Amino acid sequence: RCFHFCKLPGRVMGIRLLRFTSVVIIVLLLVAGALTALLPTIKDDKLPNSRREPKTQSQSALDSFTLIMQTYNRTDLLLKLLNHYQAIPHLHKVIVVWNNIGEKTPEEMWNSLGPHPVPVVFKVQTVNRMRNRLQNFPDLETKAVLMMDDDTLVSAHDLTFAFSVWQQFPEHIVGFVPRKHISTPSGVYSYGSFELQNPGFGNGDRYSMVLIGAAFFHSGYLEDFQRQPEAVYALIDETQNCDDIAMNFLVAKHTGKPSGVFVKPVDIRNLEKDTNSGYSGMWHRAEHLLQRSYCVNKLVNIYDGMPLKYSNIMISQFGFPNYANHKNKM
Amino acid sequence: RCFHFCKLPGRVMGIRLLRFTSVVIIVLLLVAGALTALLPTIKDDKLPNSRREPKTQSQSALDSFTLIMQTYNRTDLLLKLLNHYQAIPHLHKVIVVWNNIGEKTPEEMWNSLGPHPVPVVFKVQTVNRMRNRLQNFPDLETKAVLMMDDDTLVSAHDLTFAFSVWQQFPEHIVGFVPRKHISTPSGVYSYGSFELQNPGFGNGDRYSMVLIGAAFFHSGYLEDFQRQPEAVYALIDETQNCDDIAMNFLVAKHTGKPSGVFVKPVDIRNLEKDTNSGYSGMWHRAEHLLQRSYCVNKLVNIYDGMPLKYSNIMISQFGFPNYANHKNKM
Repeated sequence: RCFHFCKLPGRVMGIRLLRFTSVVIIVLLLVAGALTALLPTIKDDKLPNSRREPKTQSQSALDSFTLIMQTYNRTDLLLKLLNHYQAIPHLHKVIVVWNNIGEKTPEEMWNSLGPHPVPVVFKVQTVNRMRNRLQNFPDLETKAVLMMDDDTLVSAHDLTFAFSVWQQFPEHIVGFVPRKHISTPSGVYSYGSFELQNPGFGNGDRYSMVLIGAAFFHSGYLEDFQRQPEAVYALIDETQNCDDIAMNFLVAKHTGKPSGVFVKPVDIRNLEKDTNSGYSGMWHRAEHLLQRSYCVNKLVNIYDGMPLKYSNIMISQFGFPNYANHKNKM
Repeated sequence: RCFHFCKLPGRVMGIRLLRFTSVVIIVLLLVAGALTALLPTIKDDKLPNSRREPKTQSQSALDSFTLIMQTYNRTDLLLKLLNHYQAIPHLHKVIVVWNNIGEKTPEEMWNSLGPHPVPVVFKVQTVNRMRNRLQNFPDLETKAVLMMDDDTLVSAHDLTFAFSVWQQFPEHIVGFVPRKHISTPSGVYSYGSFELQNPGFGNGDRYSMVLIGAAFFHSGYLEDFQRQPEAVYALIDETQNCDDIAMNFLVAKHTGKPSGVFVKPVDIRNLEKDTNSGYSGMWHRAEHLLQRSYCVNKLVNIYDGMPLKYSNIMISQFGFPNYANHKNKM
C-alpha cells in the first residue's frame, strides 16, 4: 500500500513536473521569440503610386479624392457620368453641385438604385452661378479634389495616373486641358490654345493654365478662393465664365510657379452631343473666348500684375497604354 | 559809360541768372526723377525656361552645364560628337575623359581648328577605368553636369528641353534612358528594361533608374561619389560596368525618391556603327546584362537595402516637334 509514500512523491513529482513543464514552455517561447527576431526583414520596394486593395468607404482621406461635379440642365449626362466616376479607384465621395434651381435632385432615384461604391451628396443651390462649385463644402474630407465638368468623360486609367501625379505635385492644378495667355505689344493679353503663337523663346508651345473642369487640385485652394477680392466674384458672376482662369491666377500667385501640370489624357471625351436636353454648354456661346480674354485682362488689373507662368512640361504614363511607348531607335 | 553800374547789375544779374538757371535745372531733374518713378513697371511674363541671347564664355554657372564625355578607342566618334555638342545652348565647358592610355589626345588638332564656342579640356587618365568619368573634376564650375557616352548623339532640342527639366528637378538624374530592376520571390533582383514584367501594381510599366550615359545631374553627386564605400569602386572596377547603377543607388538613397526623371527623347542616336575603330562598346559583351543584375544585388548588399524607387512619369515637350502634340478629341 503506497498511500503516503506514493502520494508524497506524486505530489512532489507533480510539482516538479509542473515546474519543469513550465520552464520548458517558457524556454520554448523565448527561443521562438528570438527566432522571429532573426527572420530576414522583408524588403519592400516602396511603390510611390501603389494601388491599395479596394477598401470600404473609410478610405484614408490622404490617399483619396473627392469628385466635385457641377451640373445644369444635363441630368442625363450627369447620371451616365456618375455611373462611371463612382467606381474610380481612390474616390472618397462625390459632391454634385445642383444648379437646376427649383428642380428636385435625382437623390431618390439614386438611392433606390443603390448600393453605391461611395457616398454621393447633392448640394442644392439657390442661384444658378458658375462659381457655386468653388465653395468650401463642409462635406469635403480629402486633401484632393477632382473637379469635372458634367459633360466630360475621362477614363479611370487617366484619372488614376493623374491622381498619382497630383500626389507628387500637390500645390499644382494637375489636369488634362492646357490653355495659355499671350501678351501683345499693346500690353493687352489674349487667351487661347495652341492655335495662338508660341509665347516667349525657344521652340515648342507653352501653357500657363490648366482648366479645372478636368483636373485635380488641393482642397485648400477652395478655402483660399473664399478670400478673393469681391471684384473676382463680380467678374465670374458677370460673365458666368472664367472661374477656372481665376483659380489659375490664385494658384500661380500662391506658388510663384506655373499653376498647372498638364497630363496628356489617353481617353477623354466630351459627351455634350449625347444629351437629350438640347443644352450644349457655355463654351458654345459666341462671346465665350472673347470673354475669357476679357477675364484675363480684368484679373491682371485686380491682381495688379500677371502672376501666370508658362510651362512646357507634358506628362504621360510610362509604358501605358503601350508597354513600349518610350522605345527609341537606340 | 556803364562800367561800374553795368558790371554790377551784370554780375548781379549773372549770379541771379546762374542761380535761377541752377534752380530750374535742379527742379527739372527732380521732376524727371519723379516721372520715372511713376512710369508703369514693365510686367515681364517670367518664362522659367527662357533661352538667353548667346553669351560669351562667361555664361552664368547656374544657368549652364558642363558636358563630361569619357572616351575609349573611338576618337573619330568623339570628334564628330564634339562638333555637335560644342554648340548646344547653355553649354559652359566640355571635359573629355581620355581613357586611351598612353595615346596623345587630339588637343593639338582641336586647337588648330579653333576658335571653338566653349573651352574643351582633355583629362588624360593613367588607367582605363569606367569610373574615371565620375571624378570630382576641379574644372567643373557649373551646378549641372551633362554626361554623354562617346557614341550617343542627342539633338540640341532634346538637350535644351531636358536641361530645363533638370532645373526644375535638380536633385534627380534627368535623362533619356530608363531602366528598371525587378524583385523575384527568391529575393534576388534582376535588371532590365521594358521587356521585363511590370513591377508592382497598376497598369503600365515603371522605371527605377535613369542611365547617366545620356543625362543631366547635379555636380554635387560627383562629390558624393568620392565618399562611396570601397566595395562600390571594387565592383565597378571588377565589372568595368555598373557605374551608372551605382550612381542611381547613390541618388535614390540621398533623396528617398525615385533617382531619375525620364525625358522622352525625340532624336537620340547610337553612332557606334559609324566608328572606324571597329570597337563597338561594352554593352555588346555577352555578360553585359547579367553583370548588371549581379551589380544590383551586390549594391543591395553594400547598401544593406534596396534604395531604388519606381516612377512612371514620362516627360515630353509640350507642342514640340508637333505644335499640337497634345491635341485630343474633345
